[in-house]
Amino acid sequence: MRVMGIDPGLRCMGWGVIEVAGSRLSHVANGQCVSEGDDLAARLLSLHRQLGRVLEKYAPTAAAIEQTFVNRDGAGTLKLGQARGVALLSLAQAGLPVGEYAPNAVKKTVVGVGHADKRQVGHMVRMQLPGVEIVGTDAADALAIAICHAFHRQTADRMARAGA
Amino acid sequence: MRVMGIDPGLRCMGWGVIEVAGSRLSHVANGQCVSEGDDLAARLLSLHRQLGRVLEKYAPTAAAIEQTFVNRDGAGTLKLGQARGVALLSLAQAGLPVGEYAPNAVKKTVVGVGHADKRQVGHMVRMQLPGVEIVGTDAADALAIAICHAFHRQTADRMARAGA
Repeated sequence: MRVMGIDPGLRCMGWGVIEVAGSRLSHVANGQCVSEGDDLAARLLSLHRQLGRVLEKYAPTAAAIEQTFVNRDGAGTLKLGQARGVALLSLAQAGLPVGEYAPNAVKKTVVGVGHADKRQVGHMVRMQLPGVEIVGTDAADALAIAICHAFHRQTADRMARAGA
Repeated sequence: MRVMGIDPGLRCMGWGVIEVAGSRLSHVANGQCVSEGDDLAARLLSLHRQLGRVLEKYAPTAAAIEQTFVNRDGAGTLKLGQARGVALLSLAQAGLPVGEYAPNAVKKTVVGVGHADKRQVGHMVRMQLPGVEIVGTDAADALAIAICHAFHRQTADRMARAGA
């Protein structure tokens, strides 16, 4: 299974791709799409094009995206929602099933506690993906989301086998 | 100029297309895209496909979309934001410049007051587009947004000519 994680954002959208073989994880690629354009529609189009190229190049077979906080300011939620909608559309156009995880669930899976800070997340991502070079904090979060999805899928598979 | 207006929504997205020749407006088509699918990504994909077909069929040369209220609940803002992001992307992919108007600005332009109710909006849309059959309130709002955009563009053109 090759998992793509996405940390959605309008200005900068982090992405990370990992390969999952049994319980072994390895890094494939990570990056950050920075939106370009004078208005909102142009910026969303820029994100959609960049994500499309990443999906085509790395051909993931599963995807996960961070659930968005809604207890922040309304204007921020709206911006993030618009970017997140374009990310979800890109994944659906690539035919990928999409897992969604709350930020605290991602941290709890990757670091062990729900309120870890960004440095801890980056540290644990590097521990689990030896040799990885991470381009920025949004890409680190995206890799953490991919790791979280891999872990939850493995657990679900084990439970299915135990029940069979 | 052929203007497409969009009233964004995740469950139901209203659209309306009008033809503008000088100060004369005429109705081209209106409708509502209802999202289908089991999860959010599938519903956004469904909206994107339907909007793509409408854009291809009616080939507007300009577009306008309602600005979204952000003073409602965060979860609602997020849902609407995701649908709105997909609508803006569809318009940008069609190469259309997109005007954005607050709901009160649309009502003020079409009805004359900023706090008109839905029936008044529908009534005034029917007055300005004789013979129109409107499929629902979201489509009526979308036609109102298109009319609002046509009016603002005409005003901008007149001011540009007066200044020349």
